[in-house]
Amino acid sequence: MSSSTDLFAEPDTLPAQRFRARLARTLIADGEGFATRDAPRLPLTLEGVPGDRHAGHARPADSRVPWYPRGTPIRNARQLTLVAPDELDAIARRLGVPEVRPEWIGANLVVEGVGRLTWLPPGTRLHFPGGAALAVEGENAPCRHAGAAVARACPGVAGLDLAFVKAAAGLRGLVAWVERAGEIAAGTDVELRVPTQRLWRR
Amino acid sequence: MSSSTDLFAEPDTLPAQRFRARLARTLIADGEGFATRDAPRLPLTLEGVPGDRHAGHARPADSRVPWYPRGTPIRNARQLTLVAPDELDAIARRLGVPEVRPEWIGANLVVEGVGRLTWLPPGTRLHFPGGAALAVEGENAPCRHAGAAVARACPGVAGLDLAFVKAAAGLRGLVAWVERAGEIAAGTDVELRVPTQRLWRR
Repeated sequence: MSSSTDLFAEPDTLPAQRFRARLARTLIADGEGFATRDAPRLPLTLEGVPGDRHAGHARPADSRVPWYPRGTPIRNARQLTLVAPDELDAIARRLGVPEVRPEWIGANLVVEGVGRLTWLPPGTRLHFPGGAALAVEGENAPCRHAGAAVARACPGVAGLDLAFVKAAAGLRGLVAWVERAGEIAAGTDVELRVPTQRLWRR
Repeated sequence: MSSSTDLFAEPDTLPAQRFRARLARTLIADGEGFATRDAPRLPLTLEGVPGDRHAGHARPADSRVPWYPRGTPIRNARQLTLVAPDELDAIARRLGVPEVRPEWIGANLVVEGVGRLTWLPPGTRLHFPGGAALAVEGENAPCRHAGAAVARACPGVAGLDLAFVKAAAGLRGLVAWVERAGEIAAGTDVELRVPTQRLWRR
């Protein structure tokens, strides 16, 4: 092969995947703090969940993006928080607590049957009955706010706030943004569309 | 290993990568059609390039997303179009034409020195001097509009519009959205930050 052919060789590639999972619960963070509460149906707009603390076209830069000055408006790709029951169970086992509930850590959607939700690649789409759709921004790295919420919910166990940050790495779910508006409902199916994946090496 | 350990085993993983490339040209589509023209500096807002035909928080669904009714407002993750000179050269060789110019096919940014621009994974960030930043939505699948533009620019070669769509697959560059506003300028460096990659399998 010539070098120009090599330059454009296919990298490690996985074709696009498509499958169904279950939207078990829908929740909203419309109270004082970080926690969410069940709302059997959720309207979605292009800004997220109306009335939810994470809604908006933009959000202020925070400690997750320390390369931007704190408070700078940046595009909000973290409108909704998604978790999976099997991953929360794994976190609970690691922490030695009976459970980690989605509402404690601010989850908006509980998605069952994906297998390995947190590692779905950025760009994955979730299509809901009725037409609403989300795009995956990426893994939701666990933070001390969520750890503190777990610690408050399990007062008998010491050090859970920091322990959560470690135990939940790779298991805390995803953040996503709304691609198409619409209403979603707990107890319905969701179709996942994983784009073609290629391992990119310099 | 227990089956619960297997469930959460690491998939094929590549660590995050960070490197510098060159923003060779900056262009804007502020005329009648699809084509762009050089603008030595470009302001970026969270809606894209002000005055460019692809600016906006939302865009109407088109033939690229046939699962949405045409015209439905969807979030605009295609604000800017990025191309690489080495990839455009490869398209030109495949087509048997002397060149494919970025401005013919509506490029906003010409980025040199990446190696394999089109296959950068979704979620890759581009950080520019002064603080503006883009997020990669993904590969820009070649369309007949771009093919028709190449055909008009090379009137001596028949069938280029359709030939372009095939020849440019995997080589036509990326689309991206603005994460942080700011001004960018041709002839400056850009830092690329490729996130951790994992091949996700069901």
